[in-house]
Amino acid sequence: MFQNFDAPSRAHPITDRLVALRAHLARAGLAGFVVPHADEYQGEYIPASAERLAWLTGFTGSAGAAVVLAKEAAVFVDGRYTLQVRDQVDVADFTPEDLIAAPPHTWLKGRLKAGDRIGYDPRLMTLAEVRRLETVCNAAGAAFVALDENPIDAIWHDRPAAPLFQVMQQPDELAGESADAKIARLQAILADKDVDAAILAQSDSIAWTFNIRGADVPHNPVVLSYALLRRDGRPTLYVDGRKLSNSIRDDLAKRADIKEERAFLADLTALGKSGAKVLVDPQTTPALFAQTLVAANGVLVEGADPVVLPKARKNAVELDGTRRAHRRDGVAMTRFLAWLDANGAKGTETEISVAKKLETCRAEAGEADGSPLLEISFDTISGAGSDGAIVHYRVTEATDRKLEPGTLYLVDSGAQYRDGTTDITRTIAIGKPSAEMRDRFTRVLKGHIALATARFPRGTTGAQLDTLARHALWQAGLDFDHGAGHGVGVFLSVHEGPVRISKAGHLPPEPGMILSNEPGYYKTGAYGIRIENLIVVTPPAPIEGGDREMLGFETITLAPIDRNLIDTALLTPAERAWMDAYHARVREALAPGLQGVDLQFLIQATQPLDA
Amino acid sequence: MFQNFDAPSRAHPITDRLVALRAHLARAGLAGFVVPHADEYQGEYIPASAERLAWLTGFTGSAGAAVVLAKEAAVFVDGRYTLQVRDQVDVADFTPEDLIAAPPHTWLKGRLKAGDRIGYDPRLMTLAEVRRLETVCNAAGAAFVALDENPIDAIWHDRPAAPLFQVMQQPDELAGESADAKIARLQAILADKDVDAAILAQSDSIAWTFNIRGADVPHNPVVLSYALLRRDGRPTLYVDGRKLSNSIRDDLAKRADIKEERAFLADLTALGKSGAKVLVDPQTTPALFAQTLVAANGVLVEGADPVVLPKARKNAVELDGTRRAHRRDGVAMTRFLAWLDANGAKGTETEISVAKKLETCRAEAGEADGSPLLEISFDTISGAGSDGAIVHYRVTEATDRKLEPGTLYLVDSGAQYRDGTTDITRTIAIGKPSAEMRDRFTRVLKGHIALATARFPRGTTGAQLDTLARHALWQAGLDFDHGAGHGVGVFLSVHEGPVRISKAGHLPPEPGMILSNEPGYYKTGAYGIRIENLIVVTPPAPIEGGDREMLGFETITLAPIDRNLIDTALLTPAERAWMDAYHARVREALAPGLQGVDLQFLIQATQPLDA
Repeated sequence: MFQNFDAPSRAHPITDRLVALRAHLARAGLAGFVVPHADEYQGEYIPASAERLAWLTGFTGSAGAAVVLAKEAAVFVDGRYTLQVRDQVDVADFTPEDLIAAPPHTWLKGRLKAGDRIGYDPRLMTLAEVRRLETVCNAAGAAFVALDENPIDAIWHDRPAAPLFQVMQQPDELAGESADAKIARLQAILADKDVDAAILAQSDSIAWTFNIRGADVPHNPVVLSYALLRRDGRPTLYVDGRKLSNSIRDDLAKRADIKEERAFLADLTALGKSGAKVLVDPQTTPALFAQTLVAANGVLVEGADPVVLPKARKNAVELDGTRRAHRRDGVAMTRFLAWLDANGAKGTETEISVAKKLETCRAEAGEADGSPLLEISFDTISGAGSDGAIVHYRVTEATDRKLEPGTLYLVDSGAQYRDGTTDITRTIAIGKPSAEMRDRFTRVLKGHIALATARFPRGTTGAQLDTLARHALWQAGLDFDHGAGHGVGVFLSVHEGPVRISKAGHLPPEPGMILSNEPGYYKTGAYGIRIENLIVVTPPAPIEGGDREMLGFETITLAPIDRNLIDTALLTPAERAWMDAYHARVREALAPGLQGVDLQFLIQATQPLDA
Repeated sequence: MFQNFDAPSRAHPITDRLVALRAHLARAGLAGFVVPHADEYQGEYIPASAERLAWLTGFTGSAGAAVVLAKEAAVFVDGRYTLQVRDQVDVADFTPEDLIAAPPHTWLKGRLKAGDRIGYDPRLMTLAEVRRLETVCNAAGAAFVALDENPIDAIWHDRPAAPLFQVMQQPDELAGESADAKIARLQAILADKDVDAAILAQSDSIAWTFNIRGADVPHNPVVLSYALLRRDGRPTLYVDGRKLSNSIRDDLAKRADIKEERAFLADLTALGKSGAKVLVDPQTTPALFAQTLVAANGVLVEGADPVVLPKARKNAVELDGTRRAHRRDGVAMTRFLAWLDANGAKGTETEISVAKKLETCRAEAGEADGSPLLEISFDTISGAGSDGAIVHYRVTEATDRKLEPGTLYLVDSGAQYRDGTTDITRTIAIGKPSAEMRDRFTRVLKGHIALATARFPRGTTGAQLDTLARHALWQAGLDFDHGAGHGVGVFLSVHEGPVRISKAGHLPPEPGMILSNEPGYYKTGAYGIRIENLIVVTPPAPIEGGDREMLGFETITLAPIDRNLIDTALLTPAERAWMDAYHARVREALAPGLQGVDLQFLIQATQPLDA
């Protein structure tokens, strides 16, 4: 329905494209060219028209880069894609390299000579990325050269058109704050930072600010566009006019000037010439915009996108909507789990058939509830047996595996509804689990509960909280190699900054933020475990007998956690009480939406642990 | 014996000094002058000859600064000293300001006008500090001017002489690695960093490198000096020759050139002129050295002092010595606790009498063991009742408080022996404690045990581990406002970088590092609780049934923890087992050093909790 399960292919003659690119570079006097995965909006998902890396190299992963020199070329991928890249890319053309350990700027170091000109597209790379490569080039006496036209676009003759989905409004009843009020708040932030304007280059920041949504890229309901906020005066939204119905345009025009994207550079030049101080996020803004401003004598003030924090701190209306979305999603999940309970161990189901069933359950729950499923919020991770141990597994027809008794099945999925975004992982015993599986699952659950029940003072960082999700695993010589939580938007990106619960999480969770709570455990070649609920940061509140107010978390995801996998003896009385209370809440919230065998399943699956 | 319990005084005519300084500044054409607490070695303790801040303002705290302008002056202190500064400083002369919230560079911002020249002594301020103030001055069109002579030294006529204590060798049998081997290791680090030389400006780095110790400042057995490491060739040690006996000098001369400190600048100039790349730690090196290098066209490479990490990773010999020191110190502590148990509730003892008793016990234990107590490792924090709630309390004759039944007594103290440095805090019930005291103590103990028993993967940061020390308190709405742990040297500084267990601890503990484990709880006006042991980071080791090697901690401090303060019902079975096992270890290790009532006390104080 929404997910494409096609196996990655290597259909096109990559070598010809590489030859064509090199010929183009030679004509332009360039010794090399850098091809990032990102498009000019730096989002997590990109449209087909921006799949330049895949077109050139064959590699279709969701992150990466390539560097092409006259005699040598490399493709850079992270640990998730080390196998896939060798399936998709001809290593005679592109040497696979480690994007983290040996990124392009490291790889280039020994390969540059004085006078070399290495080209890049300044719309596709951020200021921070350009600086890293510039430093390496300058040190070698080479030049890192911003190009007016992307050489790949020049030779990619059947490049798809850019997406043109209609923009829709996110009504104030769901957004909880009018676009006018948001713009006024942002203007106050600009005044506080003493800047005249700010570039918004992140599509989800723009969607939030103007209360609009779109469908330009898969799974993230954003409108590909740019915006310019002004401390004094109306903002400008730069967006393809064909995406705007008359009514949307009329509404937007009440508070913003609407221009085509191609007008943005001229406006930045004018702004720069006026000597304006402009806030630019070096991590997310195309280098071209900063360069254009500076060339026109504007003053660059580097700092975080001013929308990121206000967007992350959800208001009461957004939280209510998200809670509704989670009840709806919980009904779908429970119907799915009931079906899986009855059919999972038959040996007839596969990762794809099960993932499709889950999509069906979500669509039906959305219809029944009057709030249709608009999209899945990311490609479902449907991992049976050893596939569950691959953290970012994406099933295709080529890898589709049967669910078999004595294994675990891990499913990480989510939905986009108008009132909220969901993201849930459940791990289910297919048939009878081993003692080791139950031990590991229970330790993961202990971490999940420690985070769910944590109280902490304002200012505690995500890195500090991450420890709670791992402590029970660490004590047993176990761990998992991903963060324990990420931010989530409201009918926006399922991965939303700036806060995350991970070793690198240097920012503190703040009241109203929606985060995931998802510790896991993975045994390569055997099974994977993850238990993921979304949680909302609760405001500082006193604790009886204590003397400091503490923040905490409210769990908003509602679906049974497989009791067959819990070794009750490993839980403390407090942990058992949490598990039973959670299941009682799940039952109470979801029972009204379920009937027959589904309701029976819910009642059975949410029994107290000792029953 | 070692600690001075005199009350801080306001004996001298501060105003006259301020008037004299202002006259001096006016003659020199300066609009102002910055007076840091630090001396030219940037250590935690400074000699009397460097107490410029105290001489000028009257403020004797261990951190702070002053800024003197023509019509206005301010003294900057942190939260520990907000009361003390008002006792010591005439606020008509110096307005007290918050060193953290409104430091000198913030305070100066609105007070500068174009053309102002603000002076500073580039020997007393680090590169990082100078940059912050330079930025503020430049933004206002003012100049931040390095002075050749310190204006305070010019008017401080009875300034004490610089300390001149004899340097002693730390023999290889205690250091575990010869100075030659250390220098070779450091040269390899310089080669790896591709620098020609490194400035050593931290006295404890120099003491470690050359296996020397001294007594120039209280409590830290360092030799005030500088050194220059060279990638190729002999290092130079810049030290007052009067501190060196012939035998020490002969030994040092085997591996280093010895020069007077005043020769350092000329050598830096020569080094700079040769175009050398020189590693400088901007956080700890006097700005003058960097400025001298740059003025001579040397290449400044900014980075951490190369000694800091090798010094922090203790070798087996250092760890063995430190364990011996802790057994000796544990005997002293137990004799002290036995005496306190018999006498503490009589109403006759005070914070000072008790602290002196502890010093006596340490001195006696050192003599009996053939390794005399050389120094206490910091001023003892001896806090009865509400004084225990003052985290950095330092008792004086003016504040000396009686120990009274129904209160808690907190004592944080440590010793310097030739083979190791100790740092221990115990909190003792004087008479019968309240239920609340026992509840709080037990929660602090839970945090202490969580840290002591933690297993964690390599790379886990101090900030992540800090959470474990607080979790039990947080869940009850409680917390404490200091880090859970700091690094400790071996017969060196009791506060040693670079790793700390605190919210700001961004570096990971590594095998061999000695850290403190000291969660606490403080109820203002009522009582303070802290339980502090030193712990050693253990190497990665497998855990049965697990699949990853984990680091952990070995507790090396040996002294009973007051069982009267433990509410056993709040502990898990694993926590009770840890407590009993720790006490059994304490008994086994210390019994051979104790007799009579002291031994009886040890046996009783280390009984299992349920006995």
